[in-house]
Amino acid sequence: MRNSTRSAVDPFIVMDVMQAAAAAEEAGRHIIHMEVGQPGTGAPRAATEALAKAMADGPLGYTVALGLPALRERIARMYGEWYNVDLDPARVVITPGSSGGFLLAFTSLFDSGDKVGIGAPGYPSYRQILRALALQPVDLPTRPENRYQPVPEDFALLDLAGLLVASPANPTGTMLDHAAMSALIGACHDSGASFISDEIYHGIEYEKKAVTALEVSDECYVINSFSKYFSMTGWRVGWMVVPEDQVRVVERIAQNMFICAPHASQVAALAAMDCEAELEANMDVYRANRTMMLEGLPRAGFTEIAPPDGAFYVYADVSAITDDSRALAADILDKAGVAVTPGLDFDPLRGHGTLRFSYARSTADIAEGLARLEAYMKAR
Amino acid sequence: MRNSTRSAVDPFIVMDVMQAAAAAEEAGRHIIHMEVGQPGTGAPRAATEALAKAMADGPLGYTVALGLPALRERIARMYGEWYNVDLDPARVVITPGSSGGFLLAFTSLFDSGDKVGIGAPGYPSYRQILRALALQPVDLPTRPENRYQPVPEDFALLDLAGLLVASPANPTGTMLDHAAMSALIGACHDSGASFISDEIYHGIEYEKKAVTALEVSDECYVINSFSKYFSMTGWRVGWMVVPEDQVRVVERIAQNMFICAPHASQVAALAAMDCEAELEANMDVYRANRTMMLEGLPRAGFTEIAPPDGAFYVYADVSAITDDSRALAADILDKAGVAVTPGLDFDPLRGHGTLRFSYARSTADIAEGLARLEAYMKAR
Repeated sequence: MRNSTRSAVDPFIVMDVMQAAAAAEEAGRHIIHMEVGQPGTGAPRAATEALAKAMADGPLGYTVALGLPALRERIARMYGEWYNVDLDPARVVITPGSSGGFLLAFTSLFDSGDKVGIGAPGYPSYRQILRALALQPVDLPTRPENRYQPVPEDFALLDLAGLLVASPANPTGTMLDHAAMSALIGACHDSGASFISDEIYHGIEYEKKAVTALEVSDECYVINSFSKYFSMTGWRVGWMVVPEDQVRVVERIAQNMFICAPHASQVAALAAMDCEAELEANMDVYRANRTMMLEGLPRAGFTEIAPPDGAFYVYADVSAITDDSRALAADILDKAGVAVTPGLDFDPLRGHGTLRFSYARSTADIAEGLARLEAYMKAR
Repeated sequence: MRNSTRSAVDPFIVMDVMQAAAAAEEAGRHIIHMEVGQPGTGAPRAATEALAKAMADGPLGYTVALGLPALRERIARMYGEWYNVDLDPARVVITPGSSGGFLLAFTSLFDSGDKVGIGAPGYPSYRQILRALALQPVDLPTRPENRYQPVPEDFALLDLAGLLVASPANPTGTMLDHAAMSALIGACHDSGASFISDEIYHGIEYEKKAVTALEVSDECYVINSFSKYFSMTGWRVGWMVVPEDQVRVVERIAQNMFICAPHASQVAALAAMDCEAELEANMDVYRANRTMMLEGLPRAGFTEIAPPDGAFYVYADVSAITDDSRALAADILDKAGVAVTPGLDFDPLRGHGTLRFSYARSTADIAEGLARLEAYMKAR
């Protein structure tokens, strides 16, 4: 059967690692998972309890396309609590995960062939979803001195229809401060490019609070999710904040593309927003893990790392020891029993010299993983 | 903020009816809902029980993109039970509702500007999703003598890249028999057009079993969902069956566009597949409702109706009494307190002379609705 050009999606390089790890586990080996991009914890207990009650109370049919009004209101209130931003709930759109937010934002804003800038390294699916929609992703190679984030000079001459940034970023964990965010939004407004801010790792930050684009301007799309801080990956529920004049357009696309986000997940998400104690206990684990990573990785020999401001990743430049991160990751899995992600998924051009280490799992796993990495590097 | 051309989605005409109905209810009026396209029942009890148990057992993280293996296997088994079709579970892709299936199928098969034929009248979102992906929907006006389904002559000269059919169809409820389905698939194979079969209303059929495209050929995409027969609309879980050589392409698109279908919904869906008694009790209600509709609508004066082979709709030609179905629907709501759907959402060209009546709700509601419609038409 004939396929479209737009369906030619790059494979995830990390899948090779995950398959090899699964095969090793089936063969009885013990593997430490530093390749995974999701919390080891589940949804907060009160979230699943709220859903159990809702299921007993009656049918969970379609919600309206924009989502449950109570959830939209609760999210708007959170912007006051977290950022001191006064947000009209009418501007909040509930989405099927941040994935749904990307599909909605790209469809709402861009036409076939439009160029959309994304930082490299960055989340691989940005590039693939853009291509699947017949849009043109433009990798902006970022620099360590800019915390691996794009700056206006990186795209001044590129005639972009849009710019998509993430802070805290995946794979680097680096953040944009208020000045850096303002510079990017200002440059986009000046050139007529739409600005999209992926804030999926907000809440998972360590030394200071992440800045939301909404602190700078209302003229942007902000995408977020319950997957990371709220620990609800498999539930596929997130949200998007759009300018007032964009709500109607996005609503109509959402009605047709999705009908609605999963009702059960919306019920659970609403309850999750009041589970601060449990969510902060998860944060305590990430904090402890991060401290160990920042000590253990350099001790093992991974000294060139991006500033890990947020999220649960450390991105390391390993170009001094290899020009084939894929082979290095395979060797680390084979000899040390630690699964890590080669940088190629995040940065096709320079990722042959980088690795991403995730510390989303238990502290015991992180300790064991670091010990194995140190022994591996010593024996190398 | 500037929007794309592809974001110009038509509004749903039925939204006016639904908003007016909601306003009337808030003002204390009692409204019978014959406009809704979803069951009044919820997920089967064993489905929500299975989910409650799974939630207590551990985190519901991401599943693999193709979905839970046990669910894919159970669906494949169902093709044996329902159609005597031997289906490899590897060809079953779990999707976020049939909506997710359309996004995957269209992306996998079509490039910008490609023409995709859809029967008119038909499900409005086909047209809107195609446009949002920069594809070109081509309405194929269907005829009563063809059960309001397309036939090969309707598109012989149109150079289609694909054809999408639905059986049982929305809004008509009509089905394609084996010969009609074979003729369409044969014509598509001869002309190199991809064939997509929307089978979301399978299971809700009355006088004979619906024919799946897989009884005719493996060279097609089949889209289905747990929303209708399995009564799980808000759960956003469905599936797609694709040719063997298409699995890898679809998997990669799904990994990037969706990551996975909601895990909780997949767990519930698997349990729902063994709830035959409860689902057949729902069918008994539809059967009773349909019998009443087929007697009551003609008695009220709606005599020109499409053969209601399946689904829970009756599509009526009302061109003898109006050339403005929108005004007629508004008047029926106002004077009779019955919400119905004007045909314009389904057929922009000819829907000014048609109405869709849904009988998905309780039998008591249907009885009352029919009595009101009869009184309304008498007084007209």
